[in-house]
Amino acid sequence: MQTTNNLDIKNARQHIEADLKELIEKHSYQNFFHEIYDYSLLPAGKLFRPLLAYATAMDFGINLDNKDAHNSIKSFSCALEIHHTYTLIHDDMPCMDDDQYRRGRLSTHAKFGQWQALLAGDALHGLSFNLINKIKCNNKYEILNYAHWCLGAKGLILGQALDLDHQMTESFENLVLTHKLKTARLIQLAIVGAYLQTENTTFQQAKALHRLGHHMGVAFQLLDDLCELEDEKLSEHESVVNPWLTRQTQCFNELKRNLEYQKHFFEKYGCENLRFVYGQYLGKILSIIENSKETIISHLSQLKNEEDVETAQAASLDPIISLLNTLTL
Amino acid sequence: MQTTNNLDIKNARQHIEADLKELIEKHSYQNFFHEIYDYSLLPAGKLFRPLLAYATAMDFGINLDNKDAHNSIKSFSCALEIHHTYTLIHDDMPCMDDDQYRRGRLSTHAKFGQWQALLAGDALHGLSFNLINKIKCNNKYEILNYAHWCLGAKGLILGQALDLDHQMTESFENLVLTHKLKTARLIQLAIVGAYLQTENTTFQQAKALHRLGHHMGVAFQLLDDLCELEDEKLSEHESVVNPWLTRQTQCFNELKRNLEYQKHFFEKYGCENLRFVYGQYLGKILSIIENSKETIISHLSQLKNEEDVETAQAASLDPIISLLNTLTL
Repeated sequence: MQTTNNLDIKNARQHIEADLKELIEKHSYQNFFHEIYDYSLLPAGKLFRPLLAYATAMDFGINLDNKDAHNSIKSFSCALEIHHTYTLIHDDMPCMDDDQYRRGRLSTHAKFGQWQALLAGDALHGLSFNLINKIKCNNKYEILNYAHWCLGAKGLILGQALDLDHQMTESFENLVLTHKLKTARLIQLAIVGAYLQTENTTFQQAKALHRLGHHMGVAFQLLDDLCELEDEKLSEHESVVNPWLTRQTQCFNELKRNLEYQKHFFEKYGCENLRFVYGQYLGKILSIIENSKETIISHLSQLKNEEDVETAQAASLDPIISLLNTLTL
Repeated sequence: MQTTNNLDIKNARQHIEADLKELIEKHSYQNFFHEIYDYSLLPAGKLFRPLLAYATAMDFGINLDNKDAHNSIKSFSCALEIHHTYTLIHDDMPCMDDDQYRRGRLSTHAKFGQWQALLAGDALHGLSFNLINKIKCNNKYEILNYAHWCLGAKGLILGQALDLDHQMTESFENLVLTHKLKTARLIQLAIVGAYLQTENTTFQQAKALHRLGHHMGVAFQLLDDLCELEDEKLSEHESVVNPWLTRQTQCFNELKRNLEYQKHFFEKYGCENLRFVYGQYLGKILSIIENSKETIISHLSQLKNEEDVETAQAASLDPIISLLNTLTL
C-alpha cells in the first residue's frame, strides 16, 4: 500500500526527536530550564501528534523539498509535542492530579520541584505558540487562531478544568465533552493545522479533518478506558470511574459512531499516511482487546446501573473489533 | 505641553477596562473561567503597561480613525494587561511566592483554589498571545516574535525563576538581571510592540525604545525598593532583602544611569505621551521620596557591607530627586 511518497514512521520519529533536542537547547538560557525540558520531553514518547501532522501534510502533497514548507511543518510538529508536554507537567502537579510518576519515571515536579515544574510548563506553553508563529504559509493567521481556540479556555484548558471539577463523571455528555476538549482538540490541531500548510486548501476538506480529529480523540480515550479492563482485578478507583462499567451502552454506541466516521473518512478521502499512523496505534489497541477479550467481557457483564436493553449487543465486542480491523488494514 | 493628539489617561483607562470586560466574556465558556478572570483582572489596576502602549502608538502617529489600527492597539494593550495578570496569578501560588493577598484582596488561588488559579493563569497566558495574533499590521510576525522573546524562558519566566531560586540576591548583577527580565521585558514589549504597529518604523528607533523600556523597568523596581524605606520601622525581611541597605552605591549609580538615559531619550525623541504616562508614575514616587526623605536617608545611613567611598554622595538623594523632577515636568 505504501508508495514513494510515504511516511517512514521510524525515521520520522528520529527526526522529530532530534528537532526537539535542538529546539530546547536553542530556547533555554543559562541552562536554567534546559535540564527540565530535556527530562520532560526526552526520550520522546510515541510522538503521536507530530506524526499525525507529518502524515497529513504528506497526504495533501506538501513539498518537503521547499525549505520554508519543510521548516514550517517541522516547527509545527515540535510545537504539538511541546504543548502536549506542558499540559502533562501541569496536570501532574500536586494541586492538579497529584501524580508522582509519569511513564514509569518521576514526574517533573517530583524530580525538580513544584515552582520549577510550573515555570517550565509556562515556558513550554509559550514556546509552542512561538513555534507555530515560525510557520511560513498563507494560512498562518488561521492556524494560530485555530490553535488558540483548540488549546485555550474554550478548548483543552476547559477540558482539564471539567476533569478536575468532576463534572466529567456527572453525565455521559460531560464525559464525551471532556474527552473532546482535553484530548481531541490537540489531535484536531495536529491534522487541521498541518493541512492548512498545504496548497489549495478548501474549507470543506478542513471541516472533514476537523471532524475526523474529533472522532479520533474521543475514540482514543474510550479505547483507553476499554483497555483498562484487560486486568482481571481492577483497582477500586478504576471500578468507580471507568465509564464502560456504568455507561456501557452509551460508551459502546459512541465508540462505534467514532470508528464508523473514521472508516467513512478514509474511504472517501484516502489519506494513506494518516490512516497508517493512526492505524499503528489502533493495531496495538486491537491486540490488547483481542488478547484479553474474555477478561474484558467478564467485566462488562457485571453491569451496574445499566438500564439499557441492548446489553447483550454491547457486551459483545465484535462490532468494535471488526471496525478496528478495517481501520488497521 | 499637551496638544491636540494627546492621550487622555482617565478616558483611556476607562476604555481599556471596558475592553478587558468585553474580552473576558468573549473568551470564556460555560462561565467556567469567567468569574476568576473577572476577579483577577477587574477592577483594573493602574493599567500601566496598556497606557504605555497607547501613549507610544500616539507619539508615533498611529491613526486611530483607521479601524484596523485602532483594533490592533486595543487588542495589544489588553494582551499586556492579561499577560501581566497571568504572571501575578502564578506568582502568588503556594509553590511560588505563596501570597494570600494581592492589592488588599485574597489572591486568586486563595479565593478560588489552586488548580483553578493554575488553569486560569494558563488560559490568560494563551489568551494574551491570541490577542497579539489579532493585530493587523505588517510587522505582526516581528511583534509576536519579540513578545515570545520578552516573555518566555529567556525573558520574564527566567526572571521569575531567578527570583525564586534566590539567585537574584547573590550579586548586584543578578539583581539587575532579574529586574530586567521580570519587570523590564513586559514594559519593553508594551512600547516596542506599540511602536512596531505604527507606520514607517526604523530599526534605530525601535532599538532606542527597547533601551528605554529596559531603563524604565529597572528604575521601576529600584524606585519601588527605595520607597519601601519610607517606613520608619522595616520588617526583618525588608532589612535583609532591600538592596538599598546592602548595595547602596550600586543601587544609586544604577538608578541614576537609568534615569539619565530616560532624560536623554525624551530630550532626543520627544514622545510627550509616553513621557506623560511614565511621568505620572514617577510623580507619585517623587512625592513619596520627598515626603519621607529624612526617614529614607536615616535607613541609608545605617550602612551594612558598604565598602564604597562614595557613601556620602549615595546617601544624599538629591541627584535622584533632581532627575525625577526633570522627568515629571
